[in-house]
Parts: sequence; C-alpha cells; structure tokens
Amino acid sequence: MRLFRPDVDRLTAYTPGEQPQESGWVKLNTNENPYPPSPRVLEAIERVASSRLHVYPDPVGTSFRKAAAELLNVEPDWILPANGSDENLTLLLRTFADPGELVCAPYPSYILYETLAAIQGAAFSRILLNPDWSWPLPACREQIENCKLLFIPNPNSPSGTFWDQETVTGLVPPRGVLVLDEAYGDFADRSDAIKILSSDVGGRVVVTRSFSKSYSLAGLRFGYAVAHPDLIRGMRKVKDSYNCDALSLAGAEAALHDQDWMLANREKIIATRGRLATALEDLGFDVTPSQANFVWTTHAERDHKQLYEQLKAGRILVRYMQFPDCIGETTIDGLRISIGRNEEIDQLLTALNTLV
Amino acid sequence: MRLFRPDVDRLTAYTPGEQPQESGWVKLNTNENPYPPSPRVLEAIERVASSRLHVYPDPVGTSFRKAAAELLNVEPDWILPANGSDENLTLLLRTFADPGELVCAPYPSYILYETLAAIQGAAFSRILLNPDWSWPLPACREQIENCKLLFIPNPNSPSGTFWDQETVTGLVPPRGVLVLDEAYGDFADRSDAIKILSSDVGGRVVVTRSFSKSYSLAGLRFGYAVAHPDLIRGMRKVKDSYNCDALSLAGAEAALHDQDWMLANREKIIATRGRLATALEDLGFDVTPSQANFVWTTHAERDHKQLYEQLKAGRILVRYMQFPDCIGETTIDGLRISIGRNEEIDQLLTALNTLV
Repeated sequence: MRLFRPDVDRLTAYTPGEQPQESGWVKLNTNENPYPPSPRVLEAIERVASSRLHVYPDPVGTSFRKAAAELLNVEPDWILPANGSDENLTLLLRTFADPGELVCAPYPSYILYETLAAIQGAAFSRILLNPDWSWPLPACREQIENCKLLFIPNPNSPSGTFWDQETVTGLVPPRGVLVLDEAYGDFADRSDAIKILSSDVGGRVVVTRSFSKSYSLAGLRFGYAVAHPDLIRGMRKVKDSYNCDALSLAGAEAALHDQDWMLANREKIIATRGRLATALEDLGFDVTPSQANFVWTTHAERDHKQLYEQLKAGRILVRYMQFPDCIGETTIDGLRISIGRNEEIDQLLTALNTLV
Repeated sequence: MRLFRPDVDRLTAYTPGEQPQESGWVKLNTNENPYPPSPRVLEAIERVASSRLHVYPDPVGTSFRKAAAELLNVEPDWILPANGSDENLTLLLRTFADPGELVCAPYPSYILYETLAAIQGAAFSRILLNPDWSWPLPACREQIENCKLLFIPNPNSPSGTFWDQETVTGLVPPRGVLVLDEAYGDFADRSDAIKILSSDVGGRVVVTRSFSKSYSLAGLRFGYAVAHPDLIRGMRKVKDSYNCDALSLAGAEAALHDQDWMLANREKIIATRGRLATALEDLGFDVTPSQANFVWTTHAERDHKQLYEQLKAGRILVRYMQFPDCIGETTIDGLRISIGRNEEIDQLLTALNTLV
C-alpha cells in the first residue's frame, strides 16, 4: 500500500552541511558567522523568555516588520518574517508553483531549490552558467520565458559571484516571479535588490534575506522576504499562523537595531576573505572573486575530495562540493571555505601548507 | 496575469484567535496556559542564547528526540520535532496528500485542517459529528474508507470531548493515515494514543503533540510527531533542513525533563476547569464535559456573540465560535473559554453574573 505522495517517495532529501554538535572543530563548512551576535539580541531574548513564553507570539510580527521597513525605507506590509529564509523559499514554491509548472535556478548554485520544487511536484530546469559564472544569454531566454519561479542566489553559492542590477533585472520571468535570495547580500560591495522592487518589473520580484550569516544568528532561524504587498499577501495565506516564535522575532529586531555590530563583523570577515584568497593563491589555488562570506577554490593539481578529507582528519571542516553535468557536460568540483576568525583561517592555511 | 496558484487565489486564510500584544487583558481565547513554564526552560534558553546562536542547530534535534523517546518508551527515530505542532500538520499534508486526494476531519473541530488541505489542493470532506459529539457511524464509513488523511483532535476543540482508544482505533483509514492531534492530550484523564502505535493499525497512525498548552510554551513554537520510523522518514524528507531553532530545541527538552512542573500546572487547570463548569451551570449555561484546558459552553436564552462582545468591552477575551452546516443542517455557536488562573476565572464569572 502506497502512503506517501509519489513525489515524496522519489525524493532524495537535501543534505545540509555537517553540523558536529561538539566543540573542538574549526568549522568552515556552512557559512556561519564566526563572531557572536549583538549583545542586544541576548538581552531581548532574555526579556521575552522570562515574561511571554506562555502566550502566542504576534502572528504577523508587527514590531519586527516595522523595524525592517524603516531600515529598507518601505512600508511594513512589504515584509514577511519567516522561520529562517528556508521557510520563505518553501512558501514561495507553495504559493506560486502548481504541480507541473516550471521552476528554474542557475547551476551550479544552491541545490535546495531543486529539492523544494520536487516536493511541490513542480518541474525543474537548471540554467547552466558559463564557466566564468556569467549567465548563458540568450541561450537561457526560453527557460526564463516559460518559468513560474526563478531563484537566483545573489551573491551565488558556491562561487560568491555577485550579479549586478542590470543583469538581474533582465532575468525577471515575464510570466512569473524572480526570487533574489540575498542570504549573503550583506557581504556584497553593494546590493541593488531593494531598488529593483520599485522598477517596472518590481511587482514580480521577491527578495529574501537571512539572519544566519551577517547577523550571526544561524541558531535562531530567522529570515524575511521583501516584496510588493500583493505578493506578500498571498504568501501570508500559505504560512503557518505562528510561523515565527517570540524569541526569534524579538532577537532579530534587536539585531536589526544594532547595525554597527553587524557592519563591524562584516568588515572583519571581508578583510579575512581578502587575506585568505591571497594566501590560497600563494599556495597554488585558484580563487573565484567572492562577495560573500566564503570563497570557492580549486587547485589544478590536487584532488579536492582528498584535501577535504585530510583537513577533516585534522578537525578542520570545509565543504567539498561536486557539480556534475555543468555546461559543456563537464563536472566541476572544489572546496567552499567559509570565512572564519583569523586564527581559524591561520589553522586552515597551516594545514593546507603541509598538504599541497 | 495570474501569478498565484489558483488554490491560493481562492483561499481564505485561517484566522487565529486575537492576540493583543499589550497587557491588561484577561485572555481566555486561545487556550494558552496561564502559568509560566518551568524555570529550567529559561535556564536552557539562556545557556544556548549566550553560546550557540551563531551556529546552525542540530537539523534533526538528536538530544530532544532522545529525551522524548525515553518519556514515551519508544526509539528516537519515532520522533519528529517541529516548529510548533502546526508545522507537523502542514508536513503531514505535504507528505501524504496529493492534489485531489481526500482529507477528512470531524466537524465541528479545528478548522485549520481544511485550510491546510486547500493550500495543498487536496479534496476535503467534513465528517459531521452527532449533536452529542459522538461519531456518526456507520454513516461516515465511506469517507474513512476513501480518505488519505484523517485528522482527529483528541481531545476535540471546541468541545473538549475525548474519544477512547476503541473508537479511535476503529477510525484508522484502511488506505490512509490517521493523525491524532493531541495538542490537549496532557489534560485528558488518560491518553491511549501511544498504545495505538503498537497495535495492528499503528503503522498508519501519527500522533502530534504541542508544547503550547500543557508546557506553557506557546511563544516558543514547538511540537513533535510520534509515529513508526517509516512514516517519520518521509515527513523528514519534506521538512526544512533546520526547522527547529536551537532555543526551542533546548527549551522543550528542559520542559520535558521537568514533568513535575507540567503536572502541577495541569492539576491546577483541571481543578479550575471543574470550578468554572459548575459556576457556569449555576448561571444557566450548558457546559460540555471537557478533558482539555477549555470548556465549550452555550446558553439557551442568550446571544453568544453579544456575550463575547460585552466581555471584550470589559477587556475579557473569550472565543466566540460559529459552525454552520452541522449535522441536520443546524448551526452551532457558543463560547470556548480557556482555563485561566483562578483570579481570571473569577473576573470572568463576575462579569457574566451581571450579563446573564
């Protein structure tokens, strides 16, 4: 007797990066921020935890939305808080993509989009990026014409590539919605995503943001979407009533109010990113220019998987990634290295120095 | 141009009970626990908040699952933690019900099941309960034979009715899954749900539990499902990678470890429930025998909606509920009153005393 939906039966679950729960690891594999969140976050969490846990949270996160709207210079009804940016990605599928409709994303990029489309029973088609991580225009024009949802992580993972506003605006599907996944947006030199929302095509764009990276709050699970209120209204119908807990709403709002803290950590990470890139190149690696809190690196003469395993044996976790079926029927593989604290990057470089 | 899925376009969003965020209300409308959670919860939250917010939580909640499994005397792979029991209800739809497949629930009961089925594009059919809240057997047999998912809240809302194991076991769909929604299970005289999991039909039963009610943690958003590992495995494929944040996982585990605290609050609530029922009957109300943390009450000679509004004008919130199209083409309406602290119930009774 078949109980599961066939789509679920067929599905291979998305595998997130390894998350050892014990200490003692140099953890450079899931793009967490190595610095702690603003002390104001802890204060806000303690205040709510000691007084309001027994009652339901505000189902629409009024106070957080007001703070985010002020920061972005939009109205609060442009904002949808979620249980991690992942939840907003799931909601986007469930709001816009009927079974069989086409969903697209560039490749290589974040593989989760494909999993979410499969769960929803949507059709999925990869847009194969050029070897230099640029868009294969006009070859991908037909996919964009036909898709209901196009996910673009900007900056992209694993490459760290940032696509400028002109490029991105040209990719908005004429009969669908562009999702600009700005999980790493705060690390880019500049983000134009909010500006695109007030352009001619802005009514078909949803920007998603995460508190996991720049705000050092991966453990809190909080993200938000920014879009025209017409789009937000539909997504809100689909979300669970109380999708965000009282602690994350308060913690995220406190984090937003401490921009200085976030920006100081961002500066440190960008400085370390530059140092890591140079040091890797000195060791013979190729490093893709990154505008995120990680770098994508390859070595012409080394086995990347073996390097990953050798580092892991020394309690240093980086992400080994392999992307078969890239443009020109090639397979790309390499290491994606999150930007840790300076001493963690030193440990990594010391280890790599003996390995290559 | 149509952007939303037609199911979403058509959908009227589920409306949760009013959640005034300011103080000064006697809030008896959303079945929250009036007593604070165990102090151990706050300790656990502070410990995690000050040390592990910048890293991702354990994606499968290993430590919580171990604690829940010990309490229930099952293996940890029988447990699925979720961002509130609501998330598990959503996951059940997304795991088991394809568009067009039949989903059933008793009526009157929790209206959210219908909304979740509509979002998924599933067909939904109400099983109209008898006026005494018993099941309309054998009239509902065909619905049960044909449904892929049957949701039964036990105890039921708004009635507080508890259906015994024999009744519930006889309702397991032969070609589908029974979901026993035990959000209020801890307030029942006894719950047989875990026993049903090891019965002949146990492989087609999922029990869901919430920390919002008995554990006083509505603000934390945490619940879990218990089911055969084969079913849990499918649901886990569909859930977001990090669906539970580090604070709720640690807080819920701490709450589970303080059974004495939960049980002491439960005793207080059950005592107050008895006192409220008697006092309402003295005022001329009918009160349905309840095994939950609320009572369903009607008055033969009063307008229930007007009573609700008069109470609200005095800053006392109860839930006015109306269920059209009940068995025999009747409309049922009445007040669902959450069991608050004794002084809150006294305020309610004083107000009602002047109103009826």
